[in-house]
Amino acid sequence: MNLAPIGHLRGPFAEKFGTPRQPGLVPEVEAVVELLAPWNTGDAVRGLEGFSHVWLLFGFHLNDPVSPARSTVRPPRLGGNERLGVFATRSPYRPNPVGLSLVKVRQVLPDRLVVAGADLVDGTPVYDIKPWLPWADRPVQGEREGGGFAGAPPESQLEVIFAPGVEGHPLAPELKQILSFDPRPAYQRGDAGRLYGMAYAGHEIQWQVDDKKKQLQVVAIRNSIDKGPE
Amino acid sequence: MNLAPIGHLRGPFAEKFGTPRQPGLVPEVEAVVELLAPWNTGDAVRGLEGFSHVWLLFGFHLNDPVSPARSTVRPPRLGGNERLGVFATRSPYRPNPVGLSLVKVRQVLPDRLVVAGADLVDGTPVYDIKPWLPWADRPVQGEREGGGFAGAPPESQLEVIFAPGVEGHPLAPELKQILSFDPRPAYQRGDAGRLYGMAYAGHEIQWQVDDKKKQLQVVAIRNSIDKGPE
Repeated sequence: MNLAPIGHLRGPFAEKFGTPRQPGLVPEVEAVVELLAPWNTGDAVRGLEGFSHVWLLFGFHLNDPVSPARSTVRPPRLGGNERLGVFATRSPYRPNPVGLSLVKVRQVLPDRLVVAGADLVDGTPVYDIKPWLPWADRPVQGEREGGGFAGAPPESQLEVIFAPGVEGHPLAPELKQILSFDPRPAYQRGDAGRLYGMAYAGHEIQWQVDDKKKQLQVVAIRNSIDKGPE
Repeated sequence: MNLAPIGHLRGPFAEKFGTPRQPGLVPEVEAVVELLAPWNTGDAVRGLEGFSHVWLLFGFHLNDPVSPARSTVRPPRLGGNERLGVFATRSPYRPNPVGLSLVKVRQVLPDRLVVAGADLVDGTPVYDIKPWLPWADRPVQGEREGGGFAGAPPESQLEVIFAPGVEGHPLAPELKQILSFDPRPAYQRGDAGRLYGMAYAGHEIQWQVDDKKKQLQVVAIRNSIDKGPE
């Protein structure tokens, strides 16, 4: 089956590094699904305003090329050492690299959908929008519920602090939430003094981690279009 | 993006007619996802046994050809008259005809997965299996929840009774559940005396509906391979 995008996601996360690994971890971060023709006249979303949440089916378009997909992957949550079956994980490296995210519906417009809680990089191709059905999309009341090795959300692992000069920045509250999940790959933990950076909401963000104190300090928040000296 | 099946569903529903319109309506009906090579060695499902539920991404392979897909559809739940946006429904007639169903995990074997509650026709191509994550795949506790026009499961609309000769048949309990949802298209309701049939679990099932009494009577349950006279 061949899938064609019905829209693209526009949001603050400009790259994979730093983007939350599952939806709902940063519940207030907003994004927009921009619909493509012929789905952008308002007809295709008629009735959607009655739903609190929708599923987005999307493509993992930033995957490094791995060919063919492997049967096992190493989930970051397990420290990157243990291998699990790809169908037991939500890894982006899947036989068919389609992702699934539940997001909140904030606003329904003829050619776009404003959503909150998305864990998707800006530019992500969206293949389908499906309404969340409260009675079909969760276990029946009383059924056993088990989330395997991923039964609980990742704990916020780091205390996020801000260097003088960037404290009080308008982006500080959401950065506090996003960076607390420690975007570093497991093998870089303990690499003291290293400077990390990511692009977020039109800004370049830089930080350092003190692994002993479990503290992350944001040292710079720079407008990406400001090309002059600091 | 091009999707290739990673397996096929094998189950009792032999045709679209009579197959439940959403998962979980017939929670005890079992089906099997038969994995295709190279995903059938056991590696790809390692760790899946810890999860109570999985998502199946599958193809609506029995759609009548409609080309191109339309922006609006007529949900059976609204009597087949009102048009809603395709992204506000779970209609199989979608721009990208990929379906999403939550099913219970009953047994994990190297080359197959036994599941319960699937609303899928025998032979359905499966494109992905994703573990259900209790903390990411449902609204956050306390968030507003709304299911629009489909906020509640369809009510069982018909009392299902069995004619003498078929009462006590081993398939009777599950047929009672399946047929109570009234598989007829809305425009055929009220068509008294008409004989309906479907293939189910290797049997031909026949019934009639008395719309005044809201009663469905199963009149025959015949083994499909029994070719002799009744």
